[in-house]
Amino acid sequence: MTITRRLFNKSLLLASAAAWLPSFPQNQLRVNGQRLNATIKALSEFGKNPEGGVSRVAYSEADHRGREYVAGLMRQAKLEVSIDPAANIIGRRAGSQKLPSILFGSHVDSVPQGGNYDGVVGSLGAIEVAQTLADNNVTTRHPLELVIFQNEEGGLIGSRAMDGELTDRELDLVSRSGKTIREGISYLGGDPTQLTSVRRKRGDIAAYLELHIEQGGTLEAEKIDIGVVEGIVGINWWDVTIEGFANHAGTTAMNNRQDALLAAAKFIQAVNQIVTSIPGRQVGTVGRIQALPGAPNVIPGKVILSLELRDLDAAKIKMLYDKIYAAAQEIATASKTRFSFNEINVNIPAPTDERIRATIAESAKELGLSTKSMPSGAGHDAQDMARLGPVGMIFVPSVRGISHSPLEFSKPEDIANGANVLLHTLMKLDQKL
Amino acid sequence: MTITRRLFNKSLLLASAAAWLPSFPQNQLRVNGQRLNATIKALSEFGKNPEGGVSRVAYSEADHRGREYVAGLMRQAKLEVSIDPAANIIGRRAGSQKLPSILFGSHVDSVPQGGNYDGVVGSLGAIEVAQTLADNNVTTRHPLELVIFQNEEGGLIGSRAMDGELTDRELDLVSRSGKTIREGISYLGGDPTQLTSVRRKRGDIAAYLELHIEQGGTLEAEKIDIGVVEGIVGINWWDVTIEGFANHAGTTAMNNRQDALLAAAKFIQAVNQIVTSIPGRQVGTVGRIQALPGAPNVIPGKVILSLELRDLDAAKIKMLYDKIYAAAQEIATASKTRFSFNEINVNIPAPTDERIRATIAESAKELGLSTKSMPSGAGHDAQDMARLGPVGMIFVPSVRGISHSPLEFSKPEDIANGANVLLHTLMKLDQKL
Repeated sequence: MTITRRLFNKSLLLASAAAWLPSFPQNQLRVNGQRLNATIKALSEFGKNPEGGVSRVAYSEADHRGREYVAGLMRQAKLEVSIDPAANIIGRRAGSQKLPSILFGSHVDSVPQGGNYDGVVGSLGAIEVAQTLADNNVTTRHPLELVIFQNEEGGLIGSRAMDGELTDRELDLVSRSGKTIREGISYLGGDPTQLTSVRRKRGDIAAYLELHIEQGGTLEAEKIDIGVVEGIVGINWWDVTIEGFANHAGTTAMNNRQDALLAAAKFIQAVNQIVTSIPGRQVGTVGRIQALPGAPNVIPGKVILSLELRDLDAAKIKMLYDKIYAAAQEIATASKTRFSFNEINVNIPAPTDERIRATIAESAKELGLSTKSMPSGAGHDAQDMARLGPVGMIFVPSVRGISHSPLEFSKPEDIANGANVLLHTLMKLDQKL
Repeated sequence: MTITRRLFNKSLLLASAAAWLPSFPQNQLRVNGQRLNATIKALSEFGKNPEGGVSRVAYSEADHRGREYVAGLMRQAKLEVSIDPAANIIGRRAGSQKLPSILFGSHVDSVPQGGNYDGVVGSLGAIEVAQTLADNNVTTRHPLELVIFQNEEGGLIGSRAMDGELTDRELDLVSRSGKTIREGISYLGGDPTQLTSVRRKRGDIAAYLELHIEQGGTLEAEKIDIGVVEGIVGINWWDVTIEGFANHAGTTAMNNRQDALLAAAKFIQAVNQIVTSIPGRQVGTVGRIQALPGAPNVIPGKVILSLELRDLDAAKIKMLYDKIYAAAQEIATASKTRFSFNEINVNIPAPTDERIRATIAESAKELGLSTKSMPSGAGHDAQDMARLGPVGMIFVPSVRGISHSPLEFSKPEDIANGANVLLHTLMKLDQKL
């Protein structure tokens, strides 16, 4: 239907218009994988660590210069580039019709001592898609907006400004760069006094697409080319305090102890046992622990530890938490300690759009690539975009599943495959939506 | 035999000489419990914490002033007071014969946020004994030396100087006061360049006696008046490093993890299980733990924890360690982690002298007090003195077994009982040795 309209609206003689028909050459469009991997290599110079990998934390000089390089690539791809007041880089490409934009992109900031693929593959993959469209004079129905979100690693700051979640109070938090977020936004060319102008409402965007490395080892282990992301998991984080009684490790008999660390040890095992006792991809982690007073010759009187649960289904997280909470009470009784749970942060699960998932799978299939549906265990800007419209995410394999590390790596051919799937998904959605 | 000699050496008319005969009034000698408890109260003013208890860490101003108060009491008790080059306070009392000295005493420094009884009961109890001897004109055969050891809590520094164990390198360590040990010794009136002059050899002392609070809850729980210390336990401390693989807590499936903290949790439980699986008073403690990198959203790749084992029998400590080490290897294999053990410190067990134990028990019995043989789970200056001659320790009950805490408490009547046992043990040993 849409195609028909195009044909009538524009000249039948236009090659780009003819290309919209399924059997026309546009289906044969491919990104330039070599060019894409060369830009990934070039970006890795900004914030490069002597020992490998990159430290390009948001608002650092390396981040600033890396973004300038990226903005230059976007201009080469014939995008109209601007920096919004939240310091996101936006590259616009006009559409042939008056429709909401399709957004696509990722981020180029890194964690300290991070790798060269997290965020970068999606950002430069999106630019390569834009370049391919430009090179082939393809005009889409929808306007396109390529977004390089700022400070993804430090709390999805750019995308949360866009969906209106970013609070004024957060702007004064000091980021890993040493600058406050407010200062960082100004430093990157944004205007923290004008953040409300970047907010978008549900329906303002036709779709958001993001290509990303898996950051886990499933695709590589199962020899799958493309992960079709079912959604971004919900993340619940509690701090758990265990109170016993600190006492002399030499004079307090074993049966007279109220050892908070022994209780914590039982709790950590219970978390693992409960999380692994049911089928599914849910994960549970105790990543941080502090025992007080923390001397070899004193029985710990207090332990504070973190508990993090992730799953695509908020109800499952709740069910796991309830079981863990009950186990904690049993441990408390048996060990004469007291457990208290303090909820620190909740990210609700963000499912991706069913039609977009199908389109990703269809595009991959046409490209001869195998696919697997999977959750994203990590948070992404896509979860914020899911509040504004339908989203989809495309994963490519991470070698050995390593991420947030200088050892992070994805193969050039896998990256090119991912960018091709992004290109074709974008073109198909432009027709479908 | 000795008594006879005294009777011939001095006038039969001297009441104090007559007192040495078992049936004579000297058996009726008692310390002044009220006076003793008043000095404990008075000393508690030096370094008193607003929230209770005392912070009189070695080499602090509070320690300095507290020691001046104590030295004043020692002079009142007719002791010849001096500060040795290691900054121990020594109060000498001449004996009637040319014999090695009997030493007795304790310490008055405290841990930060400590209590008013640890070390204090033994120090002021010893002074009360000296005062009682002076008040009653008792002359012993052996010279007496009342020693207030400096910096017991920071590593038995004063007594280790006396047995020659203190190293020059240790003198440059910074103590809790902020001063190095070397500076602290000078501050308290010692001379760190003359430490070799305080060294004594085995045989230089006839005996060492120390009265102390139990610091555990056994005597109170069993309603026993006096603990006869069998020995000071050996203390072995290892740092245990567990290496797994740090990875993203969201993207790493549960079955792909090498979680060093989960392995540590199993280890902490194994330590407890092994230590409590055999009868005896041995204790095992994990008091310190650090998980790296230590973020809620990262699976810990490395854990460092302390393992401390204490028992009177070094062979039992070795046996427990061997079992724990074997358990660690099993956990390592099952969890794909690696354990390594680094021995940090070993204090070998210091048994007390059998004759002195019998004399303590006999003295207590004559005073109508119940006794129980028990190990000292805590370290004491007596363990260093055990390298120089026979030692004995007398424990009095600690309410609720609490120590190294502002809640530390011993009842005035228990303290007076302990000082009376010290007095009578000292007088009996003076005859026996």
